[in-house]
Amino acid sequence: MEEELPGSIGISVSFALRLGQAFFSVASLLFMCVGVQFYAYTSFCFLVTIKGLVIPWSLTLAMVDAFSMFVKRQSRQVQIVSVIVIGDWVLSFLSLAAACSTASVSDFMVTEAGASFCDGKLCSRYQLSAAMACLSWSLSLASALFNLWLLPSLYSNF
Amino acid sequence: MEEELPGSIGISVSFALRLGQAFFSVASLLFMCVGVQFYAYTSFCFLVTIKGLVIPWSLTLAMVDAFSMFVKRQSRQVQIVSVIVIGDWVLSFLSLAAACSTASVSDFMVTEAGASFCDGKLCSRYQLSAAMACLSWSLSLASALFNLWLLPSLYSNF
Repeated sequence: MEEELPGSIGISVSFALRLGQAFFSVASLLFMCVGVQFYAYTSFCFLVTIKGLVIPWSLTLAMVDAFSMFVKRQSRQVQIVSVIVIGDWVLSFLSLAAACSTASVSDFMVTEAGASFCDGKLCSRYQLSAAMACLSWSLSLASALFNLWLLPSLYSNF
Repeated sequence: MEEELPGSIGISVSFALRLGQAFFSVASLLFMCVGVQFYAYTSFCFLVTIKGLVIPWSLTLAMVDAFSMFVKRQSRQVQIVSVIVIGDWVLSFLSLAAACSTASVSDFMVTEAGASFCDGKLCSRYQLSAAMACLSWSLSLASALFNLWLLPSLYSNF
């Protein structure tokens, strides 16, 4: 049963999810950072900080998945999967917080504050960055759920 | 073991957590709503909507807990606890999103937009509302975690 569970660690679905998280996080970071003075706003700094945590985490776990697929051997120890589940959940909550902050502040800039804070092109970059952060969060939540689902079966074998 | 698990449904700790959630949600709603034109801002409308979901949910489960304590009989069916866990997690994510949106927009108003959007008293009310929403979210997360912890032992007895 554990072998067939989709999306848990060491399976190609999990590898795809991790790559998707890293891709959307990098896209969000690029939209936010390149050529924009994001550090003037607290929410945008928070987004950049969290993305700086999510990208290495996702890439590391993608490498672990790729290694597991390559050697065709799944090393699912309870301790390791527990650490991964806890890290996934914490980063998932932080990603959601960062995405919501960015989305609400950029919406506020567009609808209320108007041209005094961002012109059309800059506003749409902020919004795109928030959208990418939301996509990255949804993939991160999927990974966290799949790994959480795997955990009880590991404990019962323990 | 199930009888002693703190914070899961039907125990006084759970009752206290639910009451705390409802209290902080009501406080957040009052700071946001009374005498303030919150409906001009998307984030604040979102907060009010989510609090309108969280308050009845928490009060209903507080009544369930009180009933369980009163009759000294814990009806822990897997289906009911599953529904409660799913509802708790969904509301916990929504609460976090609402709290972060409110906090970031009110911070943006205070630090950047300045007196054109809120004067000192109004700004501090927005900030207090965001703080209450964060406290309500942390209690909601605690309830969700305790009930999630309970679930595998119910499934293994099933």
